[in-house]
This record gives sequence, structure tokens and C-alpha cells, in this order.
Amino acid sequence: MSRRVSESTIRRLSYYLRALEALEGSGAATVSSEELAERGGTTAAQVRKDLSQFGSFGKRGLGYAVKELECTLRRILGLHVRWRVALVGAGRIGSALFEYPNFAQRGFDCVAVLDADPAKVGSRWGPILIRPVSELERTVRELEADLVILAVPPEAAQDLAERAVGAGARGILNFAAVQLRVPRGIPVKDVNLVFEMEALSFAITQADSHA
Amino acid sequence: MSRRVSESTIRRLSYYLRALEALEGSGAATVSSEELAERGGTTAAQVRKDLSQFGSFGKRGLGYAVKELECTLRRILGLHVRWRVALVGAGRIGSALFEYPNFAQRGFDCVAVLDADPAKVGSRWGPILIRPVSELERTVRELEADLVILAVPPEAAQDLAERAVGAGARGILNFAAVQLRVPRGIPVKDVNLVFEMEALSFAITQADSHA
Repeated sequence: MSRRVSESTIRRLSYYLRALEALEGSGAATVSSEELAERGGTTAAQVRKDLSQFGSFGKRGLGYAVKELECTLRRILGLHVRWRVALVGAGRIGSALFEYPNFAQRGFDCVAVLDADPAKVGSRWGPILIRPVSELERTVRELEADLVILAVPPEAAQDLAERAVGAGARGILNFAAVQLRVPRGIPVKDVNLVFEMEALSFAITQADSHA
Repeated sequence: MSRRVSESTIRRLSYYLRALEALEGSGAATVSSEELAERGGTTAAQVRKDLSQFGSFGKRGLGYAVKELECTLRRILGLHVRWRVALVGAGRIGSALFEYPNFAQRGFDCVAVLDADPAKVGSRWGPILIRPVSELERTVRELEADLVILAVPPEAAQDLAERAVGAGARGILNFAAVQLRVPRGIPVKDVNLVFEMEALSFAITQADSHA
């Protein structure tokens, strides 16, 4: 198995998984590369290439067994276990995340919420008491948080990332508009809605200037 | 100028722009590639390479003029104009986006909000009256929306994307967990928080299985 799997392949695996879940829900036992391709916005050849990086699946002419491939993809994506998530930042983005119904469905359990604002600390979000961000290390350690979501201002993010990783966090989802520096082997995913909007405005502007 | 600019370059341009804004705020007149590199999480050579795709900037030994480069980047990213945005989906993600203070700051004006839920239609978000999603085409056309944000369930997204583009939308920010098929030349950016979490869980799981 290659260790260098592209980000776009990983994203397509997530799409394939959703397609398989939908198919299973509708009672289908097998699925062709073509059907998976449609849901993943790609070609049948790409589906076969993506999956072949992880082993040999499917039978020529018969397609893939829906349930089996679903389990395999879940295992490849690491979704056969549950992940413990600490959310840092109880602002607007944080609360939208917290209420996102799909998080828990997909195996991500929010075990703690922390905030720097004393007015927020001590209030409850459902079963969770908001903790002061000063307790980040203790929280990550005691609650064994695997993943940390940083929904904080950019100037606070680097310090919090270092503290979270120092306390044992193994991956970071970063909403702050700053490139985090973390030790090798700690994956970081950046989500920045304004950056995505800027990429759209870039693409349209460039197309115009070449029209 | 090359038309094929990588997504990672575009993202770094957004980081450089923020670095320049911060520098301008602190009164700096010039900046070195090294300083820009630090903010962009990259190397000075990469900064020079990224910028060289768009022209010749900076003077050897003197660095870049902060204000000038800031204006240039804004122009490259298409941020010298304002963009009119229609938001489809007044749910949790939609409302977090709507209240995101940076959107308007960066030149993205939300001119309309639409929803499929009759209970939401007609209520107000600040100055904006929520419209029924059946009026998508008319809204995009009349309000001259350039960009459409789809914060809707996956099964609704493809149809809405086609209708938005048919009515004149020029780019889409898609929060639905489905790959949209749109005509060539219409940029689509996908944001899916669960997919990002899955990419983290994938990275950690793969690292473990090779440890």
C-alpha cells in the first residue's frame, strides 16, 4: 500500500462511501465502477485506480459488493473507530460545528468545548460544560482527545496548536487564517471560507482577463 | 501569465495578502520574501516563485513594497471589485456564514438568502428577507448575484447549481456532500467539514498502520 495517497483520492473515498451508504439503504447488493464514478464526479477508471491503491476489490463483470466495500472504505478512512474531538472556540463557527448532526453520525464525538471568553466559560452546550482555554492541555490529556478543532482568531491559533499537540492531540482541523507549524506526522486540515470565496473570485477574474 | 495556477498557490496568495495587511497596519513599508514566507507557511523561494507567475515584483535586496504588493494581490485575486453573493440554505451553516464578519470585509456582499422551508421564508436576517428557493433564478438575475453559496442537503444541490448557473451565477461555494456537475468555466469550491475530519482520521490511521 502506498503511503502517498493524494488529497483528491481521499476526498473521493469519502464520496464513494456516501454512495455506498445510499445504495445499501436502497437495498442494492452490488455496484459498478460507473455508478460509483457518477457519485464521485469522476470516471470508472479513476474509481478502479483509487481503490486499487488499497487492495483488490470487486469482480470483473460483477462489480463491487456494496456492504463489503463500504466496510473496507470505512476501515481505510479510519471510521471503524470513534474519534474524540475537543473544540476550541465557542463562537459562531464553533457552535455551527457543534450542532452539525453529521459529526457524531460519522464517528466524531465532541468531548469538550473550550473558550477564552470568561463570559462563555461555565455555560452549557447540551451535556458539555464550556471550559477555559487555559485548561486545554489538561482537557486533551484527561479526555483523551484525538482531534482538536481550532475555531479561534488567527493570532491565537499557533500557540493553541502547539499546546494541543504537546498534550497528545494527533490531528488538527484549523479554521484560523494562518498556516500552522506542527511537528511532522501531525496532520492539519485548513478550512477557511473566505479563502474559498477568494479562490472563486480569482478563477472568475482570471477567466475574464483571458476572455 | 500562466492560466494554470495551482490551488495551493492561490491559497498562499490569500495568506500573503493577510500578511501584507497586517504589515501595513503596523506601518511597515517593505517586506522580504522571508517574512511573507513565514506567514504563508512556506519558503522564500516559494514566495518568489508564486509571485513571479503574475509579473515582476520587488527589488533585489529591498524586498517588496507592502502597499503596492497588497494592491497587486488584491487585483490578482479579484478583490478590487465587490462580489454579490446569494446564499441558498438558511440553516445552521448558512446562518454562521451569514454572520461571518470577514465576508463583507473581504468584498463579498450577501444580497439574498433563500430557503426551501416555508417556515423560514419571509423572516428577516438583518436587512434581508428570506425568499423561497423557487425564486432562485429570478433572484440571481434581478440582484445580479455573481456567486452562489449552496448550504443545502446533498440531494438538492445539483438541481440548484444548474438553476443558479442557468440564471447567470458565475461560481459556486458548495457545502453539500456531492460532486456538482457544472458547465466548463464555472468554478466550484467544495467545503465539507466531515470530509476534512475524515481526511484527518485517514492520515492518522494510515500512519498507525505503517508504524
